Amino acid sequence: MDLSFYDKPACAERRGRLAARLGNRPALIAAGASRPRGTHRGLHPFRAASHFLYLFGLHLEKAVGLWTGEGWQVFLPEPGPDAALWTGPVPGFAELGEILGVSVLATAKLQEALKPGTATLPSPDVETCVEQSTLLGREIRPGKLAAVDEPLADALIELRLVHDRAGIAGLREAAQATTAAHAEGLRAIRTGIRESVVRAAIEAELVARNMTTSFNSIVSVHGEVLHNEDHHFTLADGDLLLVDAGAETAGGWAGDVTRTWPVSGHYSPTQRDLYDVVLSAQTAAIAAIKPGRRYLELQGIAARAIADGLVGLGILRGDPAELVSDGVVALFFPHGVGHLVGLDVHDLDDLGDRATYAPGRTRSTDPGLKALRLDRDLVPGMAVTVEPGCYQVPAILDDPERTRVAKDRLRRDRLAAFRDVRGIRIEDTILVTADGHDNLNAELPKATSAIEAAMRAT
Amino acid sequence: MDLSFYDKPACAERRGRLAARLGNRPALIAAGASRPRGTHRGLHPFRAASHFLYLFGLHLEKAVGLWTGEGWQVFLPEPGPDAALWTGPVPGFAELGEILGVSVLATAKLQEALKPGTATLPSPDVETCVEQSTLLGREIRPGKLAAVDEPLADALIELRLVHDRAGIAGLREAAQATTAAHAEGLRAIRTGIRESVVRAAIEAELVARNMTTSFNSIVSVHGEVLHNEDHHFTLADGDLLLVDAGAETAGGWAGDVTRTWPVSGHYSPTQRDLYDVVLSAQTAAIAAIKPGRRYLELQGIAARAIADGLVGLGILRGDPAELVSDGVVALFFPHGVGHLVGLDVHDLDDLGDRATYAPGRTRSTDPGLKALRLDRDLVPGMAVTVEPGCYQVPAILDDPERTRVAKDRLRRDRLAAFRDVRGIRIEDTILVTADGHDNLNAELPKATSAIEAAMRAT
Repeated sequence: MDLSFYDKPACAERRGRLAARLGNRPALIAAGASRPRGTHRGLHPFRAASHFLYLFGLHLEKAVGLWTGEGWQVFLPEPGPDAALWTGPVPGFAELGEILGVSVLATAKLQEALKPGTATLPSPDVETCVEQSTLLGREIRPGKLAAVDEPLADALIELRLVHDRAGIAGLREAAQATTAAHAEGLRAIRTGIRESVVRAAIEAELVARNMTTSFNSIVSVHGEVLHNEDHHFTLADGDLLLVDAGAETAGGWAGDVTRTWPVSGHYSPTQRDLYDVVLSAQTAAIAAIKPGRRYLELQGIAARAIADGLVGLGILRGDPAELVSDGVVALFFPHGVGHLVGLDVHDLDDLGDRATYAPGRTRSTDPGLKALRLDRDLVPGMAVTVEPGCYQVPAILDDPERTRVAKDRLRRDRLAAFRDVRGIRIEDTILVTADGHDNLNAELPKATSAIEAAMRAT
Repeated sequence: MDLSFYDKPACAERRGRLAARLGNRPALIAAGASRPRGTHRGLHPFRAASHFLYLFGLHLEKAVGLWTGEGWQVFLPEPGPDAALWTGPVPGFAELGEILGVSVLATAKLQEALKPGTATLPSPDVETCVEQSTLLGREIRPGKLAAVDEPLADALIELRLVHDRAGIAGLREAAQATTAAHAEGLRAIRTGIRESVVRAAIEAELVARNMTTSFNSIVSVHGEVLHNEDHHFTLADGDLLLVDAGAETAGGWAGDVTRTWPVSGHYSPTQRDLYDVVLSAQTAAIAAIKPGRRYLELQGIAARAIADGLVGLGILRGDPAELVSDGVVALFFPHGVGHLVGLDVHDLDDLGDRATYAPGRTRSTDPGLKALRLDRDLVPGMAVTVEPGCYQVPAILDDPERTRVAKDRLRRDRLAAFRDVRGIRIEDTILVTADGHDNLNAELPKATSAIEAAMRAT
């Protein structure tokens, strides 16, 4: 059992803080089960659900953590007679109890330990939700909370929004691996190879560190497809390669970085122009990060910088502020400027806007804001991404309905000169600090000149 | 949409053969849904369920193939308004119908197209099983067939047991990639690195080919743990590194190979002795493969070779045939000699022994046979692994209950000399041919001298 990433005091402290918020209200936190790959018996590697991992620190399959209102217990299936043969020696319940600092009991005893009104949070996997439903006698499913679950959700949101010492160390470890992986990807680029070859270089760096990816890597010459998970295209000389990839540490902490590299080693003048627009947006949004800043403002700052840039390049005309507020900029920058990062890459996403929007704030229906995943006031210890982009998406720009808002402010004759730019995004993971912010990926080249120099050096 | 791996005529022929077997009995084949990773919204890459993939050839998420009794139809969710933005342009239903050679309709129309008594097979994921249950008005869950489903299961078993031209091409492609990946792993070995570094070299070769793994790679200096998925140990000079890893092609075909390499580049005399025992068992079992051979016999052939070898080394004494039949050999070789390979690495495993044991045969309770996954008579076009092993598993050898059967035939004083061997397994994927067999991994070094030569050459 690999305990190298386990931080016992941090977990004990987190449980203590959660218990203080819950008081005598019981709560059940499930670790979940392995997900099936090809068949129900061929499984993906197990990774505990993040709420469980936050509180107990270990990937204990099918474990359940229980707050009885008076103390913590962990319930685990009894290992079968051949478990040691197939999956190696596992600590007994007594030894595991020592490791966790919590008494460990057999799952068979869970039902009788449950009190009425026990709160829970839906597991990511439906199989475990079905078991939670049976245990608690009510329907538990992903994305749905009952009233009794809300205080538990809100307490965990409050805790997990602001990372503790161990969490920050995990995020730094993830960021460092992510930076190294991107550097390997950059080194692998050459004309004529498939996208998958660059992906292999990136992910090998993570696997070698005994990590995994925090999400399915995007490594694509079609950066205009925002969640493009294909990797079969061949890199051509004039292409930009958009790489959005991040590490997940053994302890579960996520990294998330995007770079957009020129396959040839040199940006064309048009690519450089648009790249610099996106970089100016990212730089301005990062610069604004400090305690007390409302995250939503970063969206406006980035969008305004893109408006200014596109007007400067003659692609848009008109008043930049109106181009943002009318949703014209959103034709090119149709997604949110970022999200929380933690034990999930879109941290707390399982709890939706309840977690990521401050109480009283709801998601806007504006084209430039509807995809924004986060609107809280920043606090030291929060980690967020900043990831503006600029894309020529045919499904948007060729749609008269979507582009109607632009009227004559979109200069298609001028835009045609930029046809060698399909999609650019630049993203770092940023920690909010007491006096501002700390870019956890600061070492990874980002300016066009720095990227070109790094590519020449390979 | 990557169609490079799609074989339209092969899929059409398979559907035709299945339809001929089903006649007017309707059947529903689900592709399944992406499995959640950390949260229910962060997903593993989608991979269609194998029965669907066999018949339709493409990874169409949430698709359902329907045999109405008269013709084939495919049902798919209507893409949302922003689908092209997030996941790129997808062919419309009409265009996809051309690609598939089957009419494609919206999932909303599936319920009304269903006839009473429609058969199905449980999807690997519970989420899709729940949807199947709703559609068909009865409980569908993994590992469980209703009477109405049995003819469908049996028809697909009959087809998928014997690979067609396209299937064999897919298996060869997977085997070739698997061989190349193992060769990269061997090149990466050096004292002092972590297991994960070797794993990274292996998997990078697969990812670069736009493939994935067909199961979670085992890369372990603790080969005595049969399904060891930890990769955090450091390679030491006297260790053997057991690597069990395989490719899955873009079209879903699996490779599966095990090698056991000496970290130092040289097997110790004791390691060499036991390695040669396992290799002799594997060689003998492979040599026996030909049409008409009962697969169960390979277990006996391999076990007998291990008995002979262990007696020859003085670790066991007594009559080799009795050592096999009494279960003494199973103390060292406690698993089955192999399994089917196809679109799943344990092919047809979702249908259990119904698929992998011939009608009328049931699984033995003998220690040496109870873990055997396959007992059919071999037919040209079948693909199987042959993977004997020899392990010192503390949970077995230190258990007086389990070892009682050996009586004085286990010479522990002699066994003590072999303490630098924790686990050895050697595995290839073998295609049954008209005149015998074809080892799909024949190019990968296997003899100790060949492995040592390959390691010297790196």
